[in-house]
Amino acid sequence: MGDTGAAAATSPEEQHPQKAFGWAARDSSGVLSPFPFSRRQGPPYYPMCFADLPLFQLYDSFFRATGDDDVKMKILYCGICHSDLHSIKNEWQNAMYPIVPGHEIVGVVTEVGRNVDNFKVGDNAGVGCMVDSCRTCDSCEQGFENYCSKSVLTYNSIHSDGTVTYGGYSDMMVVNKDFVIRLPHNLPLDKAAPLLCAGITVYSPMKYFGLNEPGKHLGVAGLGGLGHVAVKFGKALGLKVTVISTSPNKKKEAIERLGADAFLVSRDPEQMKAAAGTMDGIIDTVSATHPVAPLLSLLKVQGKMILVGAPEKPLEVPAFCLIGGGKSLAGSNIGGIRDTQEMIDLAGKHNITAEIEIISFDYLNKAMERLAKNDVKYRFVIDVANSSSAA
Amino acid sequence: MGDTGAAAATSPEEQHPQKAFGWAARDSSGVLSPFPFSRRQGPPYYPMCFADLPLFQLYDSFFRATGDDDVKMKILYCGICHSDLHSIKNEWQNAMYPIVPGHEIVGVVTEVGRNVDNFKVGDNAGVGCMVDSCRTCDSCEQGFENYCSKSVLTYNSIHSDGTVTYGGYSDMMVVNKDFVIRLPHNLPLDKAAPLLCAGITVYSPMKYFGLNEPGKHLGVAGLGGLGHVAVKFGKALGLKVTVISTSPNKKKEAIERLGADAFLVSRDPEQMKAAAGTMDGIIDTVSATHPVAPLLSLLKVQGKMILVGAPEKPLEVPAFCLIGGGKSLAGSNIGGIRDTQEMIDLAGKHNITAEIEIISFDYLNKAMERLAKNDVKYRFVIDVANSSSAA
Repeated sequence: MGDTGAAAATSPEEQHPQKAFGWAARDSSGVLSPFPFSRRQGPPYYPMCFADLPLFQLYDSFFRATGDDDVKMKILYCGICHSDLHSIKNEWQNAMYPIVPGHEIVGVVTEVGRNVDNFKVGDNAGVGCMVDSCRTCDSCEQGFENYCSKSVLTYNSIHSDGTVTYGGYSDMMVVNKDFVIRLPHNLPLDKAAPLLCAGITVYSPMKYFGLNEPGKHLGVAGLGGLGHVAVKFGKALGLKVTVISTSPNKKKEAIERLGADAFLVSRDPEQMKAAAGTMDGIIDTVSATHPVAPLLSLLKVQGKMILVGAPEKPLEVPAFCLIGGGKSLAGSNIGGIRDTQEMIDLAGKHNITAEIEIISFDYLNKAMERLAKNDVKYRFVIDVANSSSAA
Repeated sequence: MGDTGAAAATSPEEQHPQKAFGWAARDSSGVLSPFPFSRRQGPPYYPMCFADLPLFQLYDSFFRATGDDDVKMKILYCGICHSDLHSIKNEWQNAMYPIVPGHEIVGVVTEVGRNVDNFKVGDNAGVGCMVDSCRTCDSCEQGFENYCSKSVLTYNSIHSDGTVTYGGYSDMMVVNKDFVIRLPHNLPLDKAAPLLCAGITVYSPMKYFGLNEPGKHLGVAGLGGLGHVAVKFGKALGLKVTVISTSPNKKKEAIERLGADAFLVSRDPEQMKAAAGTMDGIIDTVSATHPVAPLLSLLKVQGKMILVGAPEKPLEVPAFCLIGGGKSLAGSNIGGIRDTQEMIDLAGKHNITAEIEIISFDYLNKAMERLAKNDVKYRFVIDVANSSSAA
């Protein structure tokens, strides 16, 4: 606790030796504005209570430009995830303002620590939702750092050095090498950025629940940032993919542009009845409260529906809908680092990218307003490198 | 439909060539009373529209005492399952009166068809919840006849010959050999009877969801007919077993008599908090409406809770309870025939039986009243052979 106290006593701009610039929300209005802050130079080898002594800092920075295990990167693009909106408005009641959001980060490596052998200066690199974890618990050992109780999220989380983490709505980043993702050369960086959250969020449960076997029938409920990527991965994996949506007008796009095999209007009882018992699994990306019983009816015997969107109100689940066919309703939260690398490699192989709208920092607040109304196809991505001078 | 019509036009007593006697409910009062009926002699090799011609029946019975693939058995004991109570009161809106309930049936083989090589006259035998299935669908091929959409339940179900099936509250039965279970010699038949439904209902999900690996921690929610058997199988499989119950006064019994390792009072927030995140899986046997979020909190990351009791009202499931730890809420309905045999063989090996109260037919209605109040430890079993003369 001494460390945390020491860190908190220092301003974000002076906390660490390297200057950084980003956009942050200061309160639950969620309004984002320019925010000068700082990034660490090395991993916290020394207690933070000494860290703000000027002489110590000078000594340290002289010998270690970047921490032994760290990758320093210039951020080029950062996707805007719905979580960012929830966070800056403190809708999950855990905000630590100021918040620099962003966990769909791509950029170019500018410096590596002496233990870093998987990246070199000039490489493209990505960072997703996490920047550290305990590395010793069951979850970490099985490659599910996303379920490590001590995982450190990319923003609005407490790092082991006691400081609050700041995300990718910023110009540079320093991240432990084990949490940096290699990006395939053929993917355009801007369109690849959203895969680091949206991509792994749908890919991880598809893999974990065996919905990655060619020929299986996958339902994708909701066609937004997560859903449109789920369709693409489903098709790349050789699945039959059916989009389930409340909006009939998304049919053409789902099938012609995204490659879905079929489209179901969830409010049409006839269509839903005709498709009953046909799906091996459903990835439910809908974050608005919605009836799940009709979706469960689409599953085959022993089928699995996985929630990746989190409606605020509890779902109403009739027990018979699960018991009758031995079905499962599961949840899934992002995915592990190994699976993230596997996902992006698969994306590279099949040229999977997100459909995006590029914006600059000065459009950020407008973009958030539009995101709140789901008025985006399908992901905003900030052109960080070309707009961070907006300060 | 012609077959069904012909069958329906014949009285239960004359429908088939072999006389049988049981107890049946005639309406949704659920009151049970003596009921003379009949059992088939052979499998339906001929259309039922001819079956009620006296000359045809005479010819057929002369050449085939029992169908080629059938096992005829004298019923000795039949357990009373909570489903029996739901059925006779038409609480599932599917009653076909008169209903002869009972699907926890044990007895002794009295005749076998010429293709039957797994049973001989004098063998002990059991019949559970099903007497037939399609045998060709995915579920049947994988040994999950319980999820076959054409499975024929032991009672209140339409057999392929178009007649309604009658269960084990009766003196004899004719069942296809593939749906008859071999009983281990060392198990007392009366106490083994409930395993044919209660046992497989808890064993099947334990196996399917990987909760049968020694050292895992299993929660058993509810300590009734299903729960007390789940504890015994859990211990036999080498698991740590914790009973979760609303009734603190069941603790002594759960631990000292049934062998559970621990006991949690679900209404005690302190106890529940202390046990949070400790269980690999939970078998939820509670059929009354109950909050599931506190139970889900007991699961480890990626833990699985399986419903085998079916509350009438929809369960309220906060999405975060599943997403946060990648948890699953599943349902499971009985189990397949192969697993039923495996379960009863395991019971034989470990001397697992149900705790029962033996009754005769004339106590049946009183027993149903008590069952409705959960006033039984833990299963009523009808001593059929010694009380069927109550007619």
